Amino acid sequence: MTTLQDCRALDAQDPLRALRDLFTLPRGVTYLDGNSLGVLPRSAASRVARAVEEEWGQGLIRSWNTAGWFDMPQRLGDKIALLVGAKPGEVVATDTTSINLYKVLSAALRIACSRDPARKAVVSERSNFPTDLYIAESLCEQHGMELRLVEESQVAASLQADVAVLMLTHVNYRTGAMHDMASVTRAAHEAGVLTVWDLAHSAGAVVVDLHGADADFAIGCGYKYLNGGPGAPAFAWVHPTHADRFRQPLSGWWGHAAPFEFTPGYRPAAGISRYLCGTQPILSMAALECGLDAMLAAQPLGGMPALRNKSLALTDLFIRLVEERCGGHGLSLVTPREHARRGSQVCLSRADGAYAIVQALIERGVIGDFRAGDGGAHADILRFGFTPLYIGFEDVWNAVEQLRLVLAGREWQRPEFNRKQAVT
Amino acid sequence: MTTLQDCRALDAQDPLRALRDLFTLPRGVTYLDGNSLGVLPRSAASRVARAVEEEWGQGLIRSWNTAGWFDMPQRLGDKIALLVGAKPGEVVATDTTSINLYKVLSAALRIACSRDPARKAVVSERSNFPTDLYIAESLCEQHGMELRLVEESQVAASLQADVAVLMLTHVNYRTGAMHDMASVTRAAHEAGVLTVWDLAHSAGAVVVDLHGADADFAIGCGYKYLNGGPGAPAFAWVHPTHADRFRQPLSGWWGHAAPFEFTPGYRPAAGISRYLCGTQPILSMAALECGLDAMLAAQPLGGMPALRNKSLALTDLFIRLVEERCGGHGLSLVTPREHARRGSQVCLSRADGAYAIVQALIERGVIGDFRAGDGGAHADILRFGFTPLYIGFEDVWNAVEQLRLVLAGREWQRPEFNRKQAVT
Repeated sequence: MTTLQDCRALDAQDPLRALRDLFTLPRGVTYLDGNSLGVLPRSAASRVARAVEEEWGQGLIRSWNTAGWFDMPQRLGDKIALLVGAKPGEVVATDTTSINLYKVLSAALRIACSRDPARKAVVSERSNFPTDLYIAESLCEQHGMELRLVEESQVAASLQADVAVLMLTHVNYRTGAMHDMASVTRAAHEAGVLTVWDLAHSAGAVVVDLHGADADFAIGCGYKYLNGGPGAPAFAWVHPTHADRFRQPLSGWWGHAAPFEFTPGYRPAAGISRYLCGTQPILSMAALECGLDAMLAAQPLGGMPALRNKSLALTDLFIRLVEERCGGHGLSLVTPREHARRGSQVCLSRADGAYAIVQALIERGVIGDFRAGDGGAHADILRFGFTPLYIGFEDVWNAVEQLRLVLAGREWQRPEFNRKQAVT
Repeated sequence: MTTLQDCRALDAQDPLRALRDLFTLPRGVTYLDGNSLGVLPRSAASRVARAVEEEWGQGLIRSWNTAGWFDMPQRLGDKIALLVGAKPGEVVATDTTSINLYKVLSAALRIACSRDPARKAVVSERSNFPTDLYIAESLCEQHGMELRLVEESQVAASLQADVAVLMLTHVNYRTGAMHDMASVTRAAHEAGVLTVWDLAHSAGAVVVDLHGADADFAIGCGYKYLNGGPGAPAFAWVHPTHADRFRQPLSGWWGHAAPFEFTPGYRPAAGISRYLCGTQPILSMAALECGLDAMLAAQPLGGMPALRNKSLALTDLFIRLVEERCGGHGLSLVTPREHARRGSQVCLSRADGAYAIVQALIERGVIGDFRAGDGGAHADILRFGFTPLYIGFEDVWNAVEQLRLVLAGREWQRPEFNRKQAVT
């Protein structure tokens, strides 16, 4: 049996432990929801205050040049590139994940169409994050194409001759299951299919190698594992082979080759910069840069591979402790045990009470979240995210101990935990 | 001749003078560029710090509910509605101006097409802000339509039988010329044409009455006269008659009728909420709300009509002082003298030296900006914006006095003012 002392020993031996000090963690809280909203980097308060009071307040319009505002999408993009196996100049930080998906999927459909107009389907997973499906639904309608939704197990078999694009989220938001990006992309390419990857639950959480996988397009989120703050700008990457080929439809002035010439005709910028559209929210961008810098502080300590090892050790420990200490309470493991198929979260399901258990845990200071099932194949889920930058092994112990108490004492059956509120 | 004492007397009599204290104005600067980036509301520093340190840092994911993050697009939208003649629940603050234009112009084209598929043109002004033209160019290409660019004087004559949509910026960014929204909209409707209005240079600057004008669609900017901070989120308004008719193409989860049900199929929210797409940058939204609140502080003092009167008095004074004190230096007035046709800025042109004069003025603490001409009908422009919330009559005197000194002393001919940098 694993003990609290074992967990403390793991923390003491953890070479990444000091990274935790780069973040503000609320007292009395074990935060296992960094996959929904990452925590505050310590540097962000003063950085954002400087952006507000000095750059905006004193510098005003001059700060576009003097404070480096203009270059933020590319400068932050280059930092993100280091985390996802992209090269400098290939990523921009901008807009939202949904909007960036619209841009890259539009470009993917245009490229696919120009190659082979007979390919009229986009394939995705039915359990993909819904906003991805909504955007794809909209674009398919526009292009007279079909959005074909399959189960995870059917992805390989779905790569038929009429498929133009395979759009997947690398790590599933509900289950934590991870695709093998390289082998799925290879199979797609062999079938003549382009790939669009959503890295919302993988950038900063698992090793991503876009070039190594020969991916075509990718987008991702700034406010989850990248700790960029609530609603932080998202990012987009396009393989250099495709980047200059088509204009994406959200062709605003920031994606123009010479935005300050104010010419009436659109001429797209070279490369990824054409995936910019309008003026970006600088205060939120400044916070995002703090999140990226905190993440890049792990580079001298082994970077993403080291973080990934710790993430797997944390999720392994959580699974083991739940099995050792919370058995007999009807919990099932939803996330794959196999390391190669697991993201940085662990999801548990239970026939009933999942919502109330999450609420009772929050009351005890352990913040995870609840995701409703569909009444069919997908059960209600308790979701726990483990951000290796700031979560320690004793945190895992504490989370499981509180879960044990909630279950053993049937706390979750108290009426106040069963009143549903808006779910985040 | 108008004197400095006259200007001081006007400030002393100005019932809106106290509003200036709601903003931080850098010492030694006369800021006439609020039409590009508005100044810092005093409340923003502490509000943004609270959003960073308490709501994000301590509240974390719980702040979506407890700090009112979820409702921000609608709550801020309701505040903007008060400034543009819209009703509660009709405006959302979200994304960028360019992206919001893409949404509303898409919807306008869909509605126009469903009414009369023979209408295949979008009309706009050649001198419209370029990003509007780029977005329209993209959508026209998508819909197999023609983007027809005309001069300002040709707008009325352009409303031909094949025109689907008239897309105009209410106040021209280069010239400060203002359209009569009500009469142009009436003429458009009589010709069976829908109207899309960009309020970037009018929301918070002039009286806008969207319902009074019976406009169809409008968008606008948060970081100019609304003082929302660099790259602040923009806004969108759709006439209630149209709001529920079509799905706009950027159909992300925030525009879903029930975003937290996580269902795979898109079902648009009722009304303007379907014009939302992804998660918004909360820190930038928090700053925007401070700008809106500072603007709404003028409501008990007469609101937009009172601000408009002051704005006209400021621009009248600027024009008069330039004529009285800077004559014989080759400056021409570009902005209309007629009040009904003037926005809240004054633009001057000169055959040469406009860029250098702006640089020399900045060196002297008077910040306006330069907009390049096209070598043809449109000359190089010196642009001065007058935000009545925080600009006073003595500021106008000072700006003209520095302009006089720059011209009289030929300061602008110094080589350091003629080296072009990135222009903001």
